[in-house]
Amino acid sequence: MKIEAEWMRGGTSKCWVFETAHLEQAGADVNELLPRLFGSPDSRQIDGVGGATSTTSKAMILSRPDDDEVDVEFTFAQVGIEEAAVDWGSNCGNCSAVVGLYAIEKGWVSPDGDSTRIVTRNTNTGQIIIQRVSTPDGALPIVPDADMPGVVFPGYRVGLGFRDPAGKTTGKLLPTGAPTDVIVASGTRWTVSMIDAGAPVVMVGAEELGLDTARYETWGAGVELQLDTLDVIRRQAAVRMGLAPSPSQAARAVPKLAIVGAPTGDDPEGDVNVMMLSMGKPHPALAITGSIALTLAARTPGTVLNRITGTISRSTLKLRTPAGVIETWTEHRDGSLLVGVDRTARTIATSIIHLPETLGSAVEAPLASATQ
Amino acid sequence: MKIEAEWMRGGTSKCWVFETAHLEQAGADVNELLPRLFGSPDSRQIDGVGGATSTTSKAMILSRPDDDEVDVEFTFAQVGIEEAAVDWGSNCGNCSAVVGLYAIEKGWVSPDGDSTRIVTRNTNTGQIIIQRVSTPDGALPIVPDADMPGVVFPGYRVGLGFRDPAGKTTGKLLPTGAPTDVIVASGTRWTVSMIDAGAPVVMVGAEELGLDTARYETWGAGVELQLDTLDVIRRQAAVRMGLAPSPSQAARAVPKLAIVGAPTGDDPEGDVNVMMLSMGKPHPALAITGSIALTLAARTPGTVLNRITGTISRSTLKLRTPAGVIETWTEHRDGSLLVGVDRTARTIATSIIHLPETLGSAVEAPLASATQ
Repeated sequence: MKIEAEWMRGGTSKCWVFETAHLEQAGADVNELLPRLFGSPDSRQIDGVGGATSTTSKAMILSRPDDDEVDVEFTFAQVGIEEAAVDWGSNCGNCSAVVGLYAIEKGWVSPDGDSTRIVTRNTNTGQIIIQRVSTPDGALPIVPDADMPGVVFPGYRVGLGFRDPAGKTTGKLLPTGAPTDVIVASGTRWTVSMIDAGAPVVMVGAEELGLDTARYETWGAGVELQLDTLDVIRRQAAVRMGLAPSPSQAARAVPKLAIVGAPTGDDPEGDVNVMMLSMGKPHPALAITGSIALTLAARTPGTVLNRITGTISRSTLKLRTPAGVIETWTEHRDGSLLVGVDRTARTIATSIIHLPETLGSAVEAPLASATQ
Repeated sequence: MKIEAEWMRGGTSKCWVFETAHLEQAGADVNELLPRLFGSPDSRQIDGVGGATSTTSKAMILSRPDDDEVDVEFTFAQVGIEEAAVDWGSNCGNCSAVVGLYAIEKGWVSPDGDSTRIVTRNTNTGQIIIQRVSTPDGALPIVPDADMPGVVFPGYRVGLGFRDPAGKTTGKLLPTGAPTDVIVASGTRWTVSMIDAGAPVVMVGAEELGLDTARYETWGAGVELQLDTLDVIRRQAAVRMGLAPSPSQAARAVPKLAIVGAPTGDDPEGDVNVMMLSMGKPHPALAITGSIALTLAARTPGTVLNRITGTISRSTLKLRTPAGVIETWTEHRDGSLLVGVDRTARTIATSIIHLPETLGSAVEAPLASATQ
């Protein structure tokens, strides 16, 4: 059994990109199929295509819906490494950046002018993401030449605009109704903001954590020492946001947690310093879905983040991350609010993955059942 | 520019397998081409096919020589991760296990009986490796079913026999002429054995390092504390073996260092406990080339290892490693000595790698010049 796939870099992630029909041909439950293709369970994923880290054990499943409004529908799969399991609970913003490029490279969408617009829908969250891929003179450049923080090599420029992202998970931008709330963790009262946009995110001020706001480069070590406390805050926030019935039942990936601090006095490039946690550890750059929440938090009076940035008159927000400054943007268009960020993407390899064993018997509609 | 390659697991390594002609079509210096394909320099190799660890940033370059004796000639490339550089200085025994399987899958060699023999030559070391791939009833099994320590999933069984491996680098099995020598490092005198077979290896007794020989599972932590001392020993050994003019000029990969200790009293499975260092860190399993040196060391009277094993009448030697017990074997055939080990191998994906940029101008014979 052999399965076609494209291996693509989207932003700071590597993603294996499948078409729904190709996966279904395998006739196996996708919850068994993907871990086997990736080489899980195995901390090294040595017998499969997985990269043995959270940012390189990711799959995207694409299809063309019978839908006039949407060009491409996609499902994100976080493939377990030490567990033969798939987490369908959230989208990945970095991997999202491969969808428009894939559609152009496969001829699903024809390049149109200097920037080609592809309307995509993420099925994990129901989020519409309007993608704009640079196609100067009506074609992808022969040599990709766009750079972004956290990636050494150039790729194709992709703008990701999350359409009306507020409340996609909980129904409200501010799930508790308030711009700030107090959470008690490790015997301390923490002032946090809980925001649902792009993804549910709980934000904590760096000063409250005793981090030196003047020295962003020291945050990583300081955060490592407080991971337990931060996870308690995150789990409490899950309950407050209506995402879990109790702290112990909070999912590992939702909500995300972001630490935010005022920019260093002499930093002309950043509006705010950010460190986000991903699966319990400091993220090497920034979860893109989380950056959407940060962007709307900055524009919502009274939030922890708004107290740092104040009122922003520009349409952009500059977030300093461990990988460099990432700029997000907001745009009103056709009665909708687009909140977005620019990424780069590139196809690394066109592959046929070898599946050695016959897996468990097929279920009738593996993708539909897996993503419900 | 697109380049064909097979992504294969060989033993406990993942290797990208190229044919010489395909790489040459790129018209670029292979010392620039491979790092770019792998995504180096970048500690995450996020824009390329590399796996960002030493055991997953490896390439094999194969060709069919005009030579009646040899079926396949291969060159191993350790591709740098944080450096855009390639190390051609040694072979990789785990990756070697893909060569025979590749030859059968591509039809270079026809399966012959229950075990197909493929004669291969490694160009890094000049070593002939006789490979035997299990082909029951004259064909590869449809579903690979052979297991090995350190790999969760089955593969195809491959026996690797190193033909007359002694002295391939230095000219002598015992480069100093003696089964043991004394090296002074960190103010202490260490009794070591220096052996050249498969690869140059210096061996140190676990007891001399203060490791608890009764508790092999504690070695890793103990070794981590003495990495500096062990590297001094290794560099002194490089000079004694004639591999470097001074300790500071010793290569990072040669010689390898192995720590050896008597098996725990109630261990029926191992003849010796082994921990090998790879690029300065404890190896998760065992460098296969190093296991060849260990095997001949056990059979050479007076070495540190022979004092542990005593005279072995069997043709096999059981080495306990962090990944489990690995059995090596010796065999006299056609006037030659074969020293070997069984591995498993499997093709993970058949790929076309996308090379985005035009690299530096071509050199006339990139592979020849790179491997000299």
